[in-house]
Amino acid sequence: MKQKRPSIKDIAKALNVSITTISFVLNGKGEERKISKEVIKKIEDYAEEINYRPNQIAQSLRTGKSKILVFMVEDIGNPFFAKIARIIEEIAYQKGYKVLFCSTENNDKRSRELITLFHERQVDGFIVIPSPGIQKDIENLIKSDVPVVLGDRYFKGSPMNHVVIDNYGASKKGTQHLIDNGFKNIAFISIDTKQMQMVDRARGYRDAVDEAGLSNQVLELSFDDIRKQKGKDSVKNLLTQKENIDAVFFSTNYLTQTALEIIKDIDPKLIYNLGILTFDDNDFFKINTPSISAVAQPLQEMGEELMRIMFKLLKKSKDKETPLMQTVLEATLTPRDSSRRK
Amino acid sequence: MKQKRPSIKDIAKALNVSITTISFVLNGKGEERKISKEVIKKIEDYAEEINYRPNQIAQSLRTGKSKILVFMVEDIGNPFFAKIARIIEEIAYQKGYKVLFCSTENNDKRSRELITLFHERQVDGFIVIPSPGIQKDIENLIKSDVPVVLGDRYFKGSPMNHVVIDNYGASKKGTQHLIDNGFKNIAFISIDTKQMQMVDRARGYRDAVDEAGLSNQVLELSFDDIRKQKGKDSVKNLLTQKENIDAVFFSTNYLTQTALEIIKDIDPKLIYNLGILTFDDNDFFKINTPSISAVAQPLQEMGEELMRIMFKLLKKSKDKETPLMQTVLEATLTPRDSSRRK
Repeated sequence: MKQKRPSIKDIAKALNVSITTISFVLNGKGEERKISKEVIKKIEDYAEEINYRPNQIAQSLRTGKSKILVFMVEDIGNPFFAKIARIIEEIAYQKGYKVLFCSTENNDKRSRELITLFHERQVDGFIVIPSPGIQKDIENLIKSDVPVVLGDRYFKGSPMNHVVIDNYGASKKGTQHLIDNGFKNIAFISIDTKQMQMVDRARGYRDAVDEAGLSNQVLELSFDDIRKQKGKDSVKNLLTQKENIDAVFFSTNYLTQTALEIIKDIDPKLIYNLGILTFDDNDFFKINTPSISAVAQPLQEMGEELMRIMFKLLKKSKDKETPLMQTVLEATLTPRDSSRRK
Repeated sequence: MKQKRPSIKDIAKALNVSITTISFVLNGKGEERKISKEVIKKIEDYAEEINYRPNQIAQSLRTGKSKILVFMVEDIGNPFFAKIARIIEEIAYQKGYKVLFCSTENNDKRSRELITLFHERQVDGFIVIPSPGIQKDIENLIKSDVPVVLGDRYFKGSPMNHVVIDNYGASKKGTQHLIDNGFKNIAFISIDTKQMQMVDRARGYRDAVDEAGLSNQVLELSFDDIRKQKGKDSVKNLLTQKENIDAVFFSTNYLTQTALEIIKDIDPKLIYNLGILTFDDNDFFKINTPSISAVAQPLQEMGEELMRIMFKLLKKSKDKETPLMQTVLEATLTPRDSSRRK
């Protein structure tokens, strides 16, 4: 089943034609170079027969263009990232680019390894949901003149192209919606992290309850504990022991998902009596009973904006600086049954 | 902001050290080669300072190993594929491999372009959810001695390594479960495709209702229509006009997702009165009200099995044939509220 990868030399030898002629034909320049139709056909047929493929890596070393972009996300299994990935892939494909995806697990070491891998393999551009400690690695990429756009979060004080949403404003608006619907003891359940998007969401919540003269109740779980019994127990404790809590705002979709199970477990009626709001929307929140109110990030817009900036960077001429491109998008509050006045 | 990529020669020149010495140090062989600690440190510090990175592509051209695998799926935005992707990525990472993902949209042209791209960039192995018309392309990869494992489906009559589930058996068992719970007019809603996994699921359904002396009702939607009004109308028509239908079996998760919305739209009580069963499980079916019964594919096992076979292929010695490795896994019926006897 094995065979040596055929080279252009093999074709030259087999057909007794010069390497230059073969190279013209296989690069689609046969007619232009006035090579006879018979010879063109002979070479093309033979190349197909032996399954010849030009050495693209060597080509890419010469031209420096791979037409490949990479999208590094936290977890490709999370629908939020998977959906943006799909949107980006589609836009790129229309313009002749391929996009590769990988997960960093929000781990710096892993992110660094992946950046090195892709940089060495000369992808044309990086779209990155950055893990917290890779600011220097991204700066080095940019110094090497590699197009980079950050998504979802950025490094404060480091000027880079990015597309984010107004997390503070969205979170404040969401909390205000719960307050407007009469909820008085609103808990905020989030991840224990210094990531700016999560910090901003917590801040938006705190400011809204403070301004309304209500007290805040924040539960922050470690990323590792969320799906484990430990995380589930923390949520359960919050909801059962402090019986005055009448609404919960979850800072991200996978927390909500885990919590809905716990809420059903505690008491099948609880899900109807508790005010529930989630950051990040998806189709299941819409069809759940009760339907779950959400602060929806504009996935389509985020994908389009990330690619608009990426293509600007790809097109810029070598000697010209491009101005910084930083976009802040608004999230949309989508009220449904779970946050109705009880 | 731009600078030429530094080479090993630049380091040699700047530090007045031989290229060989630098090469030993940067490949971690400084001590072994008895190079002094001071020189090692000097070289390492300088390499870091100028952000030197070895030319991995040139290395990979020499060694022929990239430690990169690719996982080509139908749609990375579909949680079924995104979850398996995550499982595969984790197993690969433990063994020092990176995995790249991309979506084929089940389109042959796109699949071919991606295969060429990855083959040229010399990934070490392909895990592929194949689109229907790429049998020859896969055969060519295998002829070139590239490790390939197919997942989810395969080409009948073409001997390749694969991991699939017993779709016929799982579908028959699921249908039988609905019959056992007293449903008499069970519809099967699926995709209009010749893909073997979908054909097998339809066959399992038909045989089960036939054997029970019941009549079958099959609705097949085109992949493009599913999320469009046309697809929604077809489902609505089936459920409202043929009022004798008392249960529906959906052949894949995204159909169920769309249909649950439609069912809620028709009449909020319908979801409690209709028997509902879905192929492919996820956390949302579990927390939905009523919870949705599912035929669950063993994602963890599928990921592990795909990687077990891939690593066998990666490890095999060049001159030895490996026997075909074909695994058929069982799906698990998970009965929940939606398929209870009404």
